[in-house]
Amino acid sequence: MDYLQNTWYAAAWSEDVVAGTMFARTIAEKPLVFFRDRDGGLVALLDRCPHRFAPLSLGLLEESTVQCRYHGLRFDGAGTCIGNPHGPITKSHVVPSFPVVERHTLIWVWLGDQTRADPATIPDMSYHDDVPATAFNKGYLHANASHLLMVDNILDLTHADYMHTETLGNGWITRSRSRVEETDDTLFIEWLGFDEPPTPLYIPEFAPGTLTDVWLSVLWYPSGAMILRSGMSLPGQKREEGLDTWNSHIMTPETATSTHYFHSSTRNYRVDDEAYNQAMYQGLRWAFETQDRPMIEGQQKRIGNTDILKLSPVLMRTDGAPVRARRMLERQIAAEATPPLRPPVYAEAKSS
Amino acid sequence: MDYLQNTWYAAAWSEDVVAGTMFARTIAEKPLVFFRDRDGGLVALLDRCPHRFAPLSLGLLEESTVQCRYHGLRFDGAGTCIGNPHGPITKSHVVPSFPVVERHTLIWVWLGDQTRADPATIPDMSYHDDVPATAFNKGYLHANASHLLMVDNILDLTHADYMHTETLGNGWITRSRSRVEETDDTLFIEWLGFDEPPTPLYIPEFAPGTLTDVWLSVLWYPSGAMILRSGMSLPGQKREEGLDTWNSHIMTPETATSTHYFHSSTRNYRVDDEAYNQAMYQGLRWAFETQDRPMIEGQQKRIGNTDILKLSPVLMRTDGAPVRARRMLERQIAAEATPPLRPPVYAEAKSS
Amino acid sequence: MDYLQNTWYAAAWSEDVVAGTMFARTIAEKPLVFFRDRDGGLVALLDRCPHRFAPLSLGLLEESTVQCRYHGLRFDGAGTCIGNPHGPITKSHVVPSFPVVERHTLIWVWLGDQTRADPATIPDMSYHDDVPATAFNKGYLHANASHLLMVDNILDLTHADYMHTETLGNGWITRSRSRVEETDDTLFIEWLGFDEPPTPLYIPEFAPGTLTDVWLSVLWYPSGAMILRSGMSLPGQKREEGLDTWNSHIMTPETATSTHYFHSSTRNYRVDDEAYNQAMYQGLRWAFETQDRPMIEGQQKRIGNTDILKLSPVLMRTDGAPVRARRMLERQIAAEATPPLRPPVYAEAKSS
Repeated sequence: MDYLQNTWYAAAWSEDVVAGTMFARTIAEKPLVFFRDRDGGLVALLDRCPHRFAPLSLGLLEESTVQCRYHGLRFDGAGTCIGNPHGPITKSHVVPSFPVVERHTLIWVWLGDQTRADPATIPDMSYHDDVPATAFNKGYLHANASHLLMVDNILDLTHADYMHTETLGNGWITRSRSRVEETDDTLFIEWLGFDEPPTPLYIPEFAPGTLTDVWLSVLWYPSGAMILRSGMSLPGQKREEGLDTWNSHIMTPETATSTHYFHSSTRNYRVDDEAYNQAMYQGLRWAFETQDRPMIEGQQKRIGNTDILKLSPVLMRTDGAPVRARRMLERQIAAEATPPLRPPVYAEAKSS
Repeated sequence: MDYLQNTWYAAAWSEDVVAGTMFARTIAEKPLVFFRDRDGGLVALLDRCPHRFAPLSLGLLEESTVQCRYHGLRFDGAGTCIGNPHGPITKSHVVPSFPVVERHTLIWVWLGDQTRADPATIPDMSYHDDVPATAFNKGYLHANASHLLMVDNILDLTHADYMHTETLGNGWITRSRSRVEETDDTLFIEWLGFDEPPTPLYIPEFAPGTLTDVWLSVLWYPSGAMILRSGMSLPGQKREEGLDTWNSHIMTPETATSTHYFHSSTRNYRVDDEAYNQAMYQGLRWAFETQDRPMIEGQQKRIGNTDILKLSPVLMRTDGAPVRARRMLERQIAAEATPPLRPPVYAEAKSS
Repeated sequence: MDYLQNTWYAAAWSEDVVAGTMFARTIAEKPLVFFRDRDGGLVALLDRCPHRFAPLSLGLLEESTVQCRYHGLRFDGAGTCIGNPHGPITKSHVVPSFPVVERHTLIWVWLGDQTRADPATIPDMSYHDDVPATAFNKGYLHANASHLLMVDNILDLTHADYMHTETLGNGWITRSRSRVEETDDTLFIEWLGFDEPPTPLYIPEFAPGTLTDVWLSVLWYPSGAMILRSGMSLPGQKREEGLDTWNSHIMTPETATSTHYFHSSTRNYRVDDEAYNQAMYQGLRWAFETQDRPMIEGQQKRIGNTDILKLSPVLMRTDGAPVRARRMLERQIAAEATPPLRPPVYAEAKSS
């Protein structure tokens, strides 16, 4: 499978990479190892010694260097060999290193052209940063399905009306007005409902019989980072005055048919209620593990090693965002594979 | 692998498909879902929503319709879409449905040309229908081997003389007179023995030293349904006056290397003896699980993803029925792949 | 994968093949069955009946013959069919048999040209034969990695300095003088150290502060049998006067990515100390299971189904022996695939 290279992939939650230890994770089929140097700075290296292809993550981390525990080559955080007990160090004694940034409690890695690795393009998930611990929950899940199917799932939230009827769906998303906006780099979809009863999860927050204005939106960054906002307000209220949540749903490809899923939820109500916070966390995991994941892994089995869009699925209005996201991603991957246009030498000669 | 399409495949025992629930099973690599409509009628659909290829078997069964629990499309028992919450229903909103018939306590499905799906061609296993519960036992087993190897096993019952020496074999099958009869649609093999001591399983039924006339026969329907009759009688007795059993051994392909195995046994003696009935059931399962299955799965590993007949096995007299069955099946599959002969258009024009 | 055919592969420890039972093991992708005939002589047959490719190892061993338990063909220890209950025995009723020799408490099998199966070419592991039980420990391990990676591991023992720092490594191997000798049929590597402190495992054997002369050597026989000698002596002592150990590390390919590993250790000190003997055994298994195996299986995952040398690894001085061993093995395999040179017929005619 071709993966987007010039993008920041979420690789881990910040706390997954503990000082003094190494953390191994495969992203887009590349085995990577992450660790912190003596100053706390992050390092991401290919988890493969150039000598015998042994996993560096089984090695020894000493200060800011890692020694392969097979034959003792030592590398610094740039992947430069700084110790070879067996002879001279040549320019081949090097491990590929990758730009890595810690931001918004996540660790992001860049696999592509390093001159283009601008941290400013990391999705703005600053709602992770300044939120009380009791109003913030997050986790990691794994699925044996393409991360593109996992993205489809979030970009068509009407599924909540049918799959998550105990929690998030009561039909309003299907009834809603939705719109999609596309930029060069992102895709945005919003669903707006009016005079809707709250969904089951939110019933306890309102007086019986209350109708609300309700809204949902997803901002997608290729290839799989999504910011999901969801809220509801009484008629006349501003959004910020109602229930307001910011959520991350980040799908990082492990392989063509497996996905690292990072999820989080923050909110502007019951912000001191840790029991509620835990219930929200458990609810999402229950929904994913018993509802979304079996469905998506079932899709994957029926699709096999191909692209669902090549199998003539019936497409509907609600597929607009998922299909546009895939098309945008395909264009970006194709652009990476195409060398930039240059005038041919002959033309240059002629014009001189 | 190519599978015979124009045939009835046993898919489940009747009680596997419980009213109000869906039953998923893959047959010949097709994921299928079975359920009963409000009148008890059976439905078999491709277990794949045409929208996003989600498993319909994870959906909601309501009366005679199934709603996909991913995005809410609803289908009736014919696979016709009768509800699309997201827009118009087009002719693409359809799930393939398959003829399905409940007969002889089994559920049979037809994957091929529906104009040819004649229930009269379902193997006559009416001995399942009118038998006391205490003289009828049945079950389901699974094997990681081609259903063709499983058919071979039953079409050469001399194996009982070597593999099932504690129960069904004492050498008489090898010593017997056998004959094979082939029709367009079936293959029949019979083994007859005379003045033989009973096999271990039947010793308790006879006075010590008794010699019997003994017989076995298998009627094979492509690609894997078999009726096995087995009995023994005292010299001069008619078959019906002796011990007489009717048994089903039905091998339905799941994939090229896995098989659904439906087995049953009925008999004309000890018909009220439930303990004996259970012992027969347990005996067959013990024999299959500890003797037949390891042997056949061992064959499969040694054969790999090819046809054993292409690997130059040594063939013997007893392979007549298995080899003829495979040749018949190959001819039938080849015929399905060949369009019927028509005179060329040019010739038609010329003759007019 | 191509495997060397004209070589003795260690298949089992002697006691694995118990009189009256059959022992099944796959070597170089060939399923084999081993047993002892009535005189205790060893038999190795292809574990596949020529009739229906059933595993003979599920059959009945009677005296010196094995009967296939599927349809009753009986074979002697040469693979000759000596019983067919279903008809005549033809020249096709034969199971390939393989030369097999019990030597040095191991069972060795030859898969190639039987005219070349000379037991004199079995590696001389006679140190297994005349050693007290309390000075001899041995075992079997399995790894999901190519046997060539397992050979690499032993032919570059500098890895002990980095991987086995609790037991066998303290840096001296890296500091040592090493030399490689190649013959037509073997490769030998030796490491010599002088005035070295003992490695952790041997510290209890010496007075504090003692420095020793230390040596290690590996004699490799294609494709994976290795004799590892290791010892240390006080300056001026002969090797035999110091601590001296003989060890076997035999890597027999099961498949291209899995290995049977036979290990043993003998020594000339503490020869009556069974507790020490057990500790050595447990130490080796702990080292392999927690250190070598994870590293080597990690290499295998990163290399995939190819040859590491085709992936441009960085090679160092210490790779001399592993690389030369692979080259030698490649030449030997290529020679087996090439018919021997003969003068062309035309030239012969001309010269007469």
